Amino acid sequence: MNKELRIPISASMRHVHLCRQDVEALFGAGHQLTPAKALSQPGQFACEETVTICGPKGCIERVRVLGPERQETQLEISRTDEFKLGVDAPIRASGKIEDTPGIRLEGPQGVVELKRGVIQAARHIHMTPADAERLGVEDRQWVMVRVGGKRGIIFDDVLVRVKESYALDMHLDTDEANAADLGPGAWGVLIKNPTRVAPDPDD
Amino acid sequence: MNKELRIPISASMRHVHLCRQDVEALFGAGHQLTPAKALSQPGQFACEETVTICGPKGCIERVRVLGPERQETQLEISRTDEFKLGVDAPIRASGKIEDTPGIRLEGPQGVVELKRGVIQAARHIHMTPADAERLGVEDRQWVMVRVGGKRGIIFDDVLVRVKESYALDMHLDTDEANAADLGPGAWGVLIKNPTRVAPDPDD
Repeated sequence: MNKELRIPISASMRHVHLCRQDVEALFGAGHQLTPAKALSQPGQFACEETVTICGPKGCIERVRVLGPERQETQLEISRTDEFKLGVDAPIRASGKIEDTPGIRLEGPQGVVELKRGVIQAARHIHMTPADAERLGVEDRQWVMVRVGGKRGIIFDDVLVRVKESYALDMHLDTDEANAADLGPGAWGVLIKNPTRVAPDPDD
Repeated sequence: MNKELRIPISASMRHVHLCRQDVEALFGAGHQLTPAKALSQPGQFACEETVTICGPKGCIERVRVLGPERQETQLEISRTDEFKLGVDAPIRASGKIEDTPGIRLEGPQGVVELKRGVIQAARHIHMTPADAERLGVEDRQWVMVRVGGKRGIIFDDVLVRVKESYALDMHLDTDEANAADLGPGAWGVLIKNPTRVAPDPDD
């Protein structure tokens, strides 16, 4: 196993990114998000704030808000969550929310009836240009990542995202992490030559 | 893609197999389980009966009982369920419940404080000896199975179980099925030559 191809892996719990308008609707006029914990990507943080999300079949409480604010609100949930909520959201790269379903967000100061923005986040790896050069991959390339353990999995359709401000980290949702029994400190090995054509990252 | 190596895949929701004593404790003396729906394996059925399961951190209602009765009670849950219940169960082949945690089962007529029997079921494929011969695998062999879609996965550590009374079907839990976005009618392709040594099936 080539140590140089090791990729640290983090599981992302369901979470929501909020625009300014929705922060104010949910938490009150002029409210500023309160950072609680830094995330693996520099500048990103989990907030003290949480919301309740409600679909046609059920609600989930205490869904974490991530900061900083974004241009458009986006809720990232797992397939398991979708069954509970009664929502069918597509698998998308972050920010690609055209033709996605909406949902109801409930905060302590008000409610937002989101028109769109609910996605299952596509598996992806954040990395710097230096990481990409070392690993021999490019921005938006699709790769595979293999994890071991007693429930080994090779994840196909993993999207590489390269930016100077990123830190090397693969993001899975909780279904994906649980399917492989991954916990804190998990890592996988990059496989650069998938044997089939991956879907268009913008699809 | 070799059509002959296609394996149908079913997702198993959390469920419990009960011994006679526990059927009576939960549903009343002399109670007989009521078949509601045949399962893919001949002779196996989902019952009308459900139980509530309670761990140190929480409970899950309406957990389906599967029949027929077994010699020893066994509860099969997903990793997602474990976090909700506050239980850490090992990955095991069905029936291998030595040194597994217990849990509280609640039925309409009584409660069972299970001493052991909670597992995450190891991925497995049921097949007949004829299937095994055609596919070129043996009972208790570890194989890989590849599924496509937009969240493609190659499942490693898949245990082959061969018996005349079985029907060809791969069983995953809900985390595993959701991680690959699998639904009804899902199938995968058998890969017979894993590149690493799989764990001991009895471990």
